[in-house]
Amino acid sequence: MNNLSFESQKTMDFIALGRLAIDLNANEINKPMEETMTFTKYLGGSPANIAVGMSKLGMKTGFIGRVADDQMGRFIASYLDKTGIDSSNVVIDKSGSKTGLAFTEIKSPTDCSILMYRDNVADLKLEPKDIKEEYIKGAKALLISGTALSKSPSREATFVALDYARKHNLVIFFDIDYRPYTWVSEEETAVYYNLAAEKCDVIIGTREEFDMMEALTNPGNSDDYVTANKWFDYNAKIVVIKHGKDGSIAYNKEGETFKGTIFPAKVVKTFGAGDSYASAFIYGLMQGWDIDKAMEFGSASASIVISSHSCSDAMPTAEQIKLYIEKSR
Amino acid sequence: MNNLSFESQKTMDFIALGRLAIDLNANEINKPMEETMTFTKYLGGSPANIAVGMSKLGMKTGFIGRVADDQMGRFIASYLDKTGIDSSNVVIDKSGSKTGLAFTEIKSPTDCSILMYRDNVADLKLEPKDIKEEYIKGAKALLISGTALSKSPSREATFVALDYARKHNLVIFFDIDYRPYTWVSEEETAVYYNLAAEKCDVIIGTREEFDMMEALTNPGNSDDYVTANKWFDYNAKIVVIKHGKDGSIAYNKEGETFKGTIFPAKVVKTFGAGDSYASAFIYGLMQGWDIDKAMEFGSASASIVISSHSCSDAMPTAEQIKLYIEKSR
Amino acid sequence: MNNLSFESQKTMDFIALGRLAIDLNANEINKPMEETMTFTKYLGGSPANIAVGMSKLGMKTGFIGRVADDQMGRFIASYLDKTGIDSSNVVIDKSGSKTGLAFTEIKSPTDCSILMYRDNVADLKLEPKDIKEEYIKGAKALLISGTALSKSPSREATFVALDYARKHNLVIFFDIDYRPYTWVSEEETAVYYNLAAEKCDVIIGTREEFDMMEALTNPGNSDDYVTANKWFDYNAKIVVIKHGKDGSIAYNKEGETFKGTIFPAKVVKTFGAGDSYASAFIYGLMQGWDIDKAMEFGSASASIVISSHSCSDAMPTAEQIKLYIEKSR
Amino acid sequence: MNNLSFESQKTMDFIALGRLAIDLNANEINKPMEETMTFTKYLGGSPANIAVGMSKLGMKTGFIGRVADDQMGRFIASYLDKTGIDSSNVVIDKSGSKTGLAFTEIKSPTDCSILMYRDNVADLKLEPKDIKEEYIKGAKALLISGTALSKSPSREATFVALDYARKHNLVIFFDIDYRPYTWVSEEETAVYYNLAAEKCDVIIGTREEFDMMEALTNPGNSDDYVTANKWFDYNAKIVVIKHGKDGSIAYNKEGETFKGTIFPAKVVKTFGAGDSYASAFIYGLMQGWDIDKAMEFGSASASIVISSHSCSDAMPTAEQIKLYIEKSR
Repeated sequence: MNNLSFESQKTMDFIALGRLAIDLNANEINKPMEETMTFTKYLGGSPANIAVGMSKLGMKTGFIGRVADDQMGRFIASYLDKTGIDSSNVVIDKSGSKTGLAFTEIKSPTDCSILMYRDNVADLKLEPKDIKEEYIKGAKALLISGTALSKSPSREATFVALDYARKHNLVIFFDIDYRPYTWVSEEETAVYYNLAAEKCDVIIGTREEFDMMEALTNPGNSDDYVTANKWFDYNAKIVVIKHGKDGSIAYNKEGETFKGTIFPAKVVKTFGAGDSYASAFIYGLMQGWDIDKAMEFGSASASIVISSHSCSDAMPTAEQIKLYIEKSR
Repeated sequence: MNNLSFESQKTMDFIALGRLAIDLNANEINKPMEETMTFTKYLGGSPANIAVGMSKLGMKTGFIGRVADDQMGRFIASYLDKTGIDSSNVVIDKSGSKTGLAFTEIKSPTDCSILMYRDNVADLKLEPKDIKEEYIKGAKALLISGTALSKSPSREATFVALDYARKHNLVIFFDIDYRPYTWVSEEETAVYYNLAAEKCDVIIGTREEFDMMEALTNPGNSDDYVTANKWFDYNAKIVVIKHGKDGSIAYNKEGETFKGTIFPAKVVKTFGAGDSYASAFIYGLMQGWDIDKAMEFGSASASIVISSHSCSDAMPTAEQIKLYIEKSR
Repeated sequence: MNNLSFESQKTMDFIALGRLAIDLNANEINKPMEETMTFTKYLGGSPANIAVGMSKLGMKTGFIGRVADDQMGRFIASYLDKTGIDSSNVVIDKSGSKTGLAFTEIKSPTDCSILMYRDNVADLKLEPKDIKEEYIKGAKALLISGTALSKSPSREATFVALDYARKHNLVIFFDIDYRPYTWVSEEETAVYYNLAAEKCDVIIGTREEFDMMEALTNPGNSDDYVTANKWFDYNAKIVVIKHGKDGSIAYNKEGETFKGTIFPAKVVKTFGAGDSYASAFIYGLMQGWDIDKAMEFGSASASIVISSHSCSDAMPTAEQIKLYIEKSR
Repeated sequence: MNNLSFESQKTMDFIALGRLAIDLNANEINKPMEETMTFTKYLGGSPANIAVGMSKLGMKTGFIGRVADDQMGRFIASYLDKTGIDSSNVVIDKSGSKTGLAFTEIKSPTDCSILMYRDNVADLKLEPKDIKEEYIKGAKALLISGTALSKSPSREATFVALDYARKHNLVIFFDIDYRPYTWVSEEETAVYYNLAAEKCDVIIGTREEFDMMEALTNPGNSDDYVTANKWFDYNAKIVVIKHGKDGSIAYNKEGETFKGTIFPAKVVKTFGAGDSYASAFIYGLMQGWDIDKAMEFGSASASIVISSHSCSDAMPTAEQIKLYIEKSR
């Protein structure tokens, strides 16, 4: 059992909002991208990956976002459909925007980087009018990704979604997902991350992401407990702070602390760890599991994904995660 | 007595944040501006006028803002000094910005308009780093003007100021002051006005301004009581809704309602009515007066200013307002 | 007699293209603008002043430009009409642009400066489609002002006008009129000034302006003869290089050199000297006068204008200039 | 023999200026890109392809351009080096720009399209100061690509290069290469294409491209002879107008007309036809061949490239082209 309460009469389990993008993964790995000659195309973007994860875990999942009016955008919409994700609230952007691209470079399992194409991207063209109150009202939970806050009008659209979600008692998950590009300054980032976090029930981020949020109001703090507690004065019920390979720590409003499990993994690349963790963790919480059990489920899912070549395509089913946990014991 | 509590041990009474501009008032009035040949220069900008009003009323007043690095900017800084307003937190903007201009046209007492020069204005260049926590900490009250929210980085700077003000128990006044230019859309405006209003103790605006704020979340509402009540769920203690020449209505968190007094006036122009009202009303509240007495003081001040040619220069002293009220009885 | 040939059968003498703006001249002179309290409004902008000068000298004059859709724009259109300048090709810009402003500061006769408002100005919104081939075809001469080249779409509109003017045998005057603001870099400026100058018959500028044009292709040159000669390889027939109070020097394609006369003047301010010089000089050339006689006429006109408070309003008639010259002998 | 004269004492044969980009060619052809899962990376960009063609034909070739400071930029620089193209004047852009991308879609041999990523591209960041007079001075010929004119500062850099090239007697080739994206309007395009064409010796474009250039000054003209003749009044010596599969027609200043040969080809895709034509045609002219022989060489080269999967990689050697022509007889 946990301290979140989902409105069980609703038919849609989970809506993710934000980035829908394309990953172009180097086929020839363990070398610099300069020498890579071919790439394979996947759905990408943190909230997109999480939505795929949730759908694979059997949750009725929807998405709010914008895609470009081109072949990449059509690929994304069709991929969502095939994965069973409701794309009725995915808008085709007609402004001449482009789908965001992420060329991944895997020099070694621990030396991975991304070459981003994020100029004039479709996902940041999301407008307040794209946010339908009825759609949000019909769901149990909403996930927003921090990148959706990085630019107008997507920034304002996200705040509108938060408003509707609070009004209709959705449980709101905030995946900080801080990517410096597209943000103008750290101060700007901190301001909007804080305004959004005030309205969320569950906040998930790395220690570095929380540091950035505290840069103006509590500079120099590195005490996870202090960080988490601030948000319990607003609407938060659970705060998860991730410490990379040292694992995660979760706090709840009731004052309890939970340490995450770490699973061994044959790492191919580090991409996708956070997204697979988030989807399985949220899935666990939506099953009413204890926080530590949900964290274990998240960790196991992350271990599975980092052992494979893609992010979205590799998202496991609940069965696969359970098996993985059993085998690891 | 009212429901606000000011920290009396602090030395600075009041800080205004936002627009510092120039009014160029047509000397030849009651004709279209096309035929106006000479203009007189005054300090302008809603929070600037309110600060002048507060200083004339004897309050120790400071300002947070940016001015252009030119003759207009130097005039403003020097005018603040002469009026006894602390300008230590008024930053000279070196980015090549310009001081905002407002050419006023007075065709008749009831047909007034403004020709605004607001491209690349200095006041909207205010940055988060311009906001000094110590300066805000030392004051009893902060006024923010809605126009400061209209563009980055001034928008983020305003939210930083709100954060510091809440942290240090200032009473926060929010003068909605909605001016469509510089805003991209009504949705954008509504989002930021709402985010700011959530953090304020006293919210002052016209019925039209509150309508704009409710455009997304409560469209079609025209019930002042409903409007006001929303904000008492956040931090508000008093909400004032202005109905033009039909007077104002104020609500407090305790559920009381107050109707404003209306004074007769020989109207020269309508400019400056809101700013003179705000300064005298806030002054009254800071004296610990009942809300209706503060509203009467505000109305009297407004009547004095609309009978004269300028806004800032015409701001009355407490003595002048008292005299005016007595004479009007 | 000079080396220019005007098509005498045409009815319109002269068309100026470019900036239409407002001068706001400080009424209290010989002090810094910070202390100036009132301003008087005049038509301004270099090609506007030249057009006024030409019209006062009795030439049938037209204008191609854009004005803002506001009181300032309407004042300009009405001023042109009153001065007898054809404004049928002055377009009202509906994009929300503003009329350029120039606040003049006269600290002393030799210490004058201008505070410019040039963000989002109407005159630089001139579009290629605003340029009517028939209108240009009907005129004997076209003047373009360098500032019109400083930004798109006015830049392209100017090149279209140059094309039509060459096609229909107008004599093209190029007033370099270099103002650093609105230009991105010196390199950008040099490129477009050179491309335009290649197409002009008479080029008029200061030594500093020609230096800027040679920054890329002949850096360090200060030899007026070399400077002038370059343009005779293109379409130029006369090049005038101004050396401030040391007077001007003119070269013609035939290899002759002409030194300008200098008249004594009771200087009030230096603004407007160039524009009044240009209009009277061009007037002289259009009368078929020798180059040196036209230069003398220009110098006399400049002396008259710098002795008065305004630029456009002070433009003299031919009678006044002749009288001035006679009195000065 | 032809009417161009190359300065034989110079060591560099040919410099191309402009776009250096990446082609991402769908591996699974004859289907829409939505269904394409893998892509192969090639050097792309019209002047880049032409430079590769020239180098393969044995000409000492250099390049002036900018590449992004990332893996794509490093791939391009290294590809130029491997192909024997001098990259000493290829600047690494540090502004955060991206390498342009072209995803090619081959639905059928006659239904090919390109999905372009051209926001914030490195090649259009070329600056006037990147153009080294000495480098240009040392070459026999310069090719500029119209796309380099589409935006500042690349536009101004191109005009600076044209200036130096004329000054030092290079033969200037202008490949119109009109791509509507990145241009603001047809009028803007026409203005700069005309200003550039005035300074070029050989102008190569499709009938549609010449129509666009005549949109303002000679609308409705479709007479190739009239089109070509205009440019002989400036600096042009040869004008080539391409009519797609109907072949090309060339005019020279001496009044002669030349019809191009058409070779049969097993078309895989149409991309690269123009670039391979241009390189082999220019090669022929630089050998001093008659214009019609050079045109035949160009056509043969185009036929070879459209029968293969890539553009740059497929550029043929002189030997291959000669063999191809012989076999086709």
